[in-house]
Amino acid sequence: MDAAFVADARARARFDPQKMGKATLFEGSALFAGLNAFEPGQEHAAHAHKGTDKLYVVLEGRGEFTVGEQRSTLERGAIAFAPADVSHAVSNPGPGRLLVLAVLAPPPR
Amino acid sequence: MDAAFVADARARARFDPQKMGKATLFEGSALFAGLNAFEPGQEHAAHAHKGTDKLYVVLEGRGEFTVGEQRSTLERGAIAFAPADVSHAVSNPGPGRLLVLAVLAPPPR
Repeated sequence: MDAAFVADARARARFDPQKMGKATLFEGSALFAGLNAFEPGQEHAAHAHKGTDKLYVVLEGRGEFTVGEQRSTLERGAIAFAPADVSHAVSNPGPGRLLVLAVLAPPPR
Repeated sequence: MDAAFVADARARARFDPQKMGKATLFEGSALFAGLNAFEPGQEHAAHAHKGTDKLYVVLEGRGEFTVGEQRSTLERGAIAFAPADVSHAVSNPGPGRLLVLAVLAPPPR
């Protein structure tokens, strides 16, 4: 079996000056977990996943989260849930970096 | 749609002096997210979920996590993954409380 633990997610984050950076942490038969890393000003524009639930956990920083018509500014420790087929978006207004755990079920292909 | 955000998971936690406390946060078609709350000395004994992947995120405190033959002490911000059918356990050695986000896919029935 692969390593079961990530003690410090920040060490696995991939920040990209051009766009939101992605890194895979775990991929199972029913669940995918990865990191979305946002430099100040970066965003993940509104999109939806057909048939796929998505959970976000803020690991570092502060972000603007939109799910359907709901909008909130969330900080470290907060959780957001976008049910299958519901539009969602994330942006980092800055000034710090934003690191988010993204969990998708079922896993993307 | 139900509320999409939990700004402070600690406010939703249910601690139980008798045993690990559980609270549901989100339940979708493919993913379930809830809180497992451990007073010092409490544990969730080794068990496995047939066909169900489970992800843990430590939201507060420090815990001993076991997945298969792997064992680690994890603190706030750390992540653990127990693939389907693999035995896993969590315990709180104390002295503080331990609060863990548990994500299961597919959702339990």
